[in-house]
Amino acid sequence: MSVLSGVPFAKGHGTRNDFVIIPDPEAVLDLSAEQVARICDRRAGIGADGVLRVVPVEAMPDQVGPRLSERSGRATWFMDYRNADGSTASMCGNGARVFARYLREVSLVTEDAFLIATRAGTHEVQVLPDGRISIEMGLPSEPSSKPDPEVILDGTTYQADAWWVPNPHAVVFIDRYSDLPTDLTPLEVHDHGHYPTGANVEFVEDQSGKDLRAAMRVHERGVGETMSCGTGACAVSLALRSRRGVTAPGSTLIDVPGGRLIVAHQQSGRMDLIGPAELVARGSFDSTWWGGHDG
Amino acid sequence: MSVLSGVPFAKGHGTRNDFVIIPDPEAVLDLSAEQVARICDRRAGIGADGVLRVVPVEAMPDQVGPRLSERSGRATWFMDYRNADGSTASMCGNGARVFARYLREVSLVTEDAFLIATRAGTHEVQVLPDGRISIEMGLPSEPSSKPDPEVILDGTTYQADAWWVPNPHAVVFIDRYSDLPTDLTPLEVHDHGHYPTGANVEFVEDQSGKDLRAAMRVHERGVGETMSCGTGACAVSLALRSRRGVTAPGSTLIDVPGGRLIVAHQQSGRMDLIGPAELVARGSFDSTWWGGHDG
Repeated sequence: MSVLSGVPFAKGHGTRNDFVIIPDPEAVLDLSAEQVARICDRRAGIGADGVLRVVPVEAMPDQVGPRLSERSGRATWFMDYRNADGSTASMCGNGARVFARYLREVSLVTEDAFLIATRAGTHEVQVLPDGRISIEMGLPSEPSSKPDPEVILDGTTYQADAWWVPNPHAVVFIDRYSDLPTDLTPLEVHDHGHYPTGANVEFVEDQSGKDLRAAMRVHERGVGETMSCGTGACAVSLALRSRRGVTAPGSTLIDVPGGRLIVAHQQSGRMDLIGPAELVARGSFDSTWWGGHDG
Repeated sequence: MSVLSGVPFAKGHGTRNDFVIIPDPEAVLDLSAEQVARICDRRAGIGADGVLRVVPVEAMPDQVGPRLSERSGRATWFMDYRNADGSTASMCGNGARVFARYLREVSLVTEDAFLIATRAGTHEVQVLPDGRISIEMGLPSEPSSKPDPEVILDGTTYQADAWWVPNPHAVVFIDRYSDLPTDLTPLEVHDHGHYPTGANVEFVEDQSGKDLRAAMRVHERGVGETMSCGTGACAVSLALRSRRGVTAPGSTLIDVPGGRLIVAHQQSGRMDLIGPAELVARGSFDSTWWGGHDG
């Protein structure tokens, strides 16, 4: 008979972008790409879009990216983020909120404002009174002088705005969100040199009135359509501010298929992503399963 | 801060048909259809094809279906099986193996041979020395005198064999498994009165040599293509035995997309389904999540 392996986990999600969190406070876990893929398998594993390993910053000194902005203090915990296929990834806005929620739930952090470290640098986190979490995102890159990219979907060519947050995005404004086809998969991007490694594509209905507001769907490179994309929401907010001629600090409300996000822009250009983060459950892996002896 | 709710669970799968198991030994859990659907949500919940609540037979006296065959002894545990949408279901061969595996893992049962109760009756279970589990399935219904049903897929019309195990199946033999289209969704069934409530459709390549053997894909009514279907494997085995003129007791090896199953036929007509059942993890739900206060 197998027994519990002692490898604990939690499962959580932010706007339906879901993660298995694995605490590794002693940094002793050898988490191979294969094991991550097994964990993220939605039928023969727990299932998730990615794994967030919780490991002390001092165990990963070479992994922490450059600081995003000047601040006092330092991060204690490093977010070792892996994609569902097992590859490492630098940063994920939705994942960072779930990571921060976990740190608080298990009292690895007790403050309302703290720092977390990722491969993209150190990020400020704030737990808001209503439970939502704000996470510092990157600064946008400067606009390019290249011709705008074009996105072709179902025989229609759309002009897109190119933004880097810092990953590449092509933002397409459409008249009516409801006119989009069910399947975004057949889209093509004519990148005009913008995206040597591909881009995420956002289709956006501008719903702004007095306040900036939009509804979006997103097609992530190498993945397909997803329920939410934090950097995509930032790119959409930047494109919307540009379109509406807004340069003052302020917020944009963005509805993604998985829920509601807010992008807050500061005078410095800094963006913060605000949204929900929910823990579903905690547990331990079965030792036979963890060891890979599939039944 | 939320805390663990105390509602425990396990996750397991059999040939990639996956389940959240919820022990309820005191039969005190009010598991609504809505709560089951939240648990089975693959992003905002744990995610599964269904929930298996473990409850004492004496708490569910009106729910246990008729005995499948004569045997001594009685079942202690009732498998309260719910589909991912929250509806109740009578029986699931893959689920029953996972249910049996769980009973053994947590020592609710210690024997290698025992009985479990379902809405479809009481079923004999055997844990084999190699860890696979054998579960008694229903007796097939008598063949119908109606004309054979037809299945149309991608413009091709296939004659099908109608079998009830006891749920309705249309078994289609094809020359080459690899010639099947990726998407089975557009299939149509001309049922000739066989299937007033629809049918599961199996596409089967007969790979029999000295022994009966087949590879199949299955499209389940109301669901779409799935990785495995226990009653589908039984229907395919029945159709294969009929096609090959086999009436003696014996076994059929059936490869489904999620793994390998064996259907064993006894002289009496009784079928047993043999296959793997694996537990992935155990844990407890977060109380805030369990209470439905979505983040």
